[in-house]
Amino acid sequence: MSGFSTDRAAAEELDAADPLARFRDRFVRADPSLIYLDGNSLGMLPEVTARRISEVVGQEWGAGLISSWAHWMDLPQQVGDLLGRHLLGAAPGQVVIADSTTVNLYKLAWAALDDRPGRPVIVTDDDNFPTDRYVLEGVAGQRGAQLRLIHTDMDDGVSEQAVRSAVGADTALVSLSHVAYRSGALADMAALTAVVHDAGALVLWDLCHSVGSVPVELDSSGADLAVGCSYKYLNAGPGAPAFLYVREGLQGRLRQPVQGWFGQRDQFAMGPGYDPAPGIARFLSGSPNVIGTVAVEEGARLLGEAGIGALRAKGMLLTDYLITLADAWLTPLGCVLASPRDAGRRGSHVSLRHPEAWRISQALIQAGVVGDYRTPDRLRLGPAPISTRFTDVWDALKTTREIIESQAYEQIQGEPARVT
Amino acid sequence: MSGFSTDRAAAEELDAADPLARFRDRFVRADPSLIYLDGNSLGMLPEVTARRISEVVGQEWGAGLISSWAHWMDLPQQVGDLLGRHLLGAAPGQVVIADSTTVNLYKLAWAALDDRPGRPVIVTDDDNFPTDRYVLEGVAGQRGAQLRLIHTDMDDGVSEQAVRSAVGADTALVSLSHVAYRSGALADMAALTAVVHDAGALVLWDLCHSVGSVPVELDSSGADLAVGCSYKYLNAGPGAPAFLYVREGLQGRLRQPVQGWFGQRDQFAMGPGYDPAPGIARFLSGSPNVIGTVAVEEGARLLGEAGIGALRAKGMLLTDYLITLADAWLTPLGCVLASPRDAGRRGSHVSLRHPEAWRISQALIQAGVVGDYRTPDRLRLGPAPISTRFTDVWDALKTTREIIESQAYEQIQGEPARVT
Repeated sequence: MSGFSTDRAAAEELDAADPLARFRDRFVRADPSLIYLDGNSLGMLPEVTARRISEVVGQEWGAGLISSWAHWMDLPQQVGDLLGRHLLGAAPGQVVIADSTTVNLYKLAWAALDDRPGRPVIVTDDDNFPTDRYVLEGVAGQRGAQLRLIHTDMDDGVSEQAVRSAVGADTALVSLSHVAYRSGALADMAALTAVVHDAGALVLWDLCHSVGSVPVELDSSGADLAVGCSYKYLNAGPGAPAFLYVREGLQGRLRQPVQGWFGQRDQFAMGPGYDPAPGIARFLSGSPNVIGTVAVEEGARLLGEAGIGALRAKGMLLTDYLITLADAWLTPLGCVLASPRDAGRRGSHVSLRHPEAWRISQALIQAGVVGDYRTPDRLRLGPAPISTRFTDVWDALKTTREIIESQAYEQIQGEPARVT
Repeated sequence: MSGFSTDRAAAEELDAADPLARFRDRFVRADPSLIYLDGNSLGMLPEVTARRISEVVGQEWGAGLISSWAHWMDLPQQVGDLLGRHLLGAAPGQVVIADSTTVNLYKLAWAALDDRPGRPVIVTDDDNFPTDRYVLEGVAGQRGAQLRLIHTDMDDGVSEQAVRSAVGADTALVSLSHVAYRSGALADMAALTAVVHDAGALVLWDLCHSVGSVPVELDSSGADLAVGCSYKYLNAGPGAPAFLYVREGLQGRLRQPVQGWFGQRDQFAMGPGYDPAPGIARFLSGSPNVIGTVAVEEGARLLGEAGIGALRAKGMLLTDYLITLADAWLTPLGCVLASPRDAGRRGSHVSLRHPEAWRISQALIQAGVVGDYRTPDRLRLGPAPISTRFTDVWDALKTTREIIESQAYEQIQGEPARVT
């Protein structure tokens, strides 16, 4: 992990050798000097996506009008299959694009609890992303179950031992994030899934911070259920629809609670009672967000063209390089690494602890370096592999060093802002 | 209602006198000869919306990136307030743009049942839109309640007497459509709300087919809850987000089941437990669909500029005129009016019954006249007031007459297609 020189020339060499360098120009760059290390929160706009949205709006909606529904109808499954093939290790017929991560979490957690009567416990970890914890708390409370929290090291993620200790014969569902939103800690999906299955429970993976940044192997890891968003590494835009995965063997058995007409077997017969469609379609509810779904399609296709193997290799190298510079320049100034040091246990973002993390993050934005702040004292930097150069990381870390050294962040007024 | 001449000159005079005629040019018209009478299913694309989406994609997402969330955060409420002011008769702080109609129905029906313990019945009508019936059936089943169906005249809507007979001390919630999706029958919101309240139950209105076509007066009618979509008369595009309304006095008391981070009191504190936000925000769940929400904003603004009073007046005149022509030309050919004859009891679409309705609808599409088919034997024609001319209605009805007279529909093969 060491062995990087801290000279900018080293970054330039890494860029010159980067097999994904050409993808950088596939994104809209309104301000070429901006260094954007927040693709883990909102991914950049691919040029092809801007064009596709414009086409779908102008041609398919504007000109095609209602007739376009003939092909829009199949988009949730078609794009789900594409995402499954390129990025999720999921065979066709198991992934759909739908709703938000929150709504999908609700549907699948509800379905899991419903499928395991006599097991009144949902397990998650106390550092899981807020919406996950809130949704699970809600589902548990509404169904007379309880939420059991695994205490987790904020910087290191959930351990196999901790999961093993938390699950038992009372457990219906374990819901975990594949990559932790704060530290970037990467969970071992196959190993933890096996632990959950040993207890006879179902597992629900949140892939928001992993899809598009690390290989996800849902089928081969034996995962039961998964959800994730599309606006981070998938670059599908603000509030674009989320996805959900249900293992084929489970689909016929599970009932989801939001019984809408897009989950109905023969939708336009408009029959008297709800009769869930066979297969993954039964996990749909209302009319799909067409414009958002085509943006997911373009994002998945773009990442598929780059290849998740190459993206992962670059992501590990970028974050290793970032940590090397942080060790050299920022640790002496009071920063502490708040992410796993081993690249194999980390997604594509890195967090640094500093008591002034929020003010530093704001001063960085003013200096043209966009990362973000996370409670309680984390500066989070996410060099998305498809759109970030090694020189961007060098420049960002150098600017961070200057801001902390000069205490330039002291001019920042106010409080943590409302940004996602 | 009569008094219209069947000469095309009469339609031309009506167009010349139409105070909303200028709005026709505010929509994208790829094929100027197309007669589109399906705005009640998917509204046309306003030119301003195409421009706004392009701006939000290119400038706010592409250039502004994560910083744009600072104003995107407030869009669900801001656009909800705009919609409330222009089209729903709702004071600020009671409407949000979120999710799909199906998900919103689920949330509010669940909340209503939760708020009325000891009342194990949800009432709706047996001709309500399928997703409404399926969602309500699901919520009832999941909470040990039952769904009671009011038997309804498919062509005439739900009567006050039928609602009065169906509700009682066992009723938690009555959920009805303001305008029926098939017949266009317009319910008397204030009168039916009073009947429901007399029984101590809550009322949930589905406004999908009424918002933007008839005045909706949620506050003054005493309505408790409402939902609706934005892709029909609101012209916000395929799968654009829906809206929900919760009367201010109820907000603090109701719990909704999908507890996500956008409904949390202090969202970015990311605290340990779910603590619902004060006010209407607690009915949000996941990240809002930004592009869809700005399309709702443009649609609401455009209709607001036209004025719901003028839209309603034109909608009544257009459908009266359509019925006059149908009486003169289509009734002798075997068509039967399947909508209320009184314009005051009808939204902005009209259905005609004919045994070959599906094949006629397909032959019309081939002839450049787009309406749609609804089970079991209805040809549905929706002349959206903001974008339809009286001459469009004349031309559409003349073409329909020719198709039925010549039996040109007999060449149509196949079965009812999958269109919304």
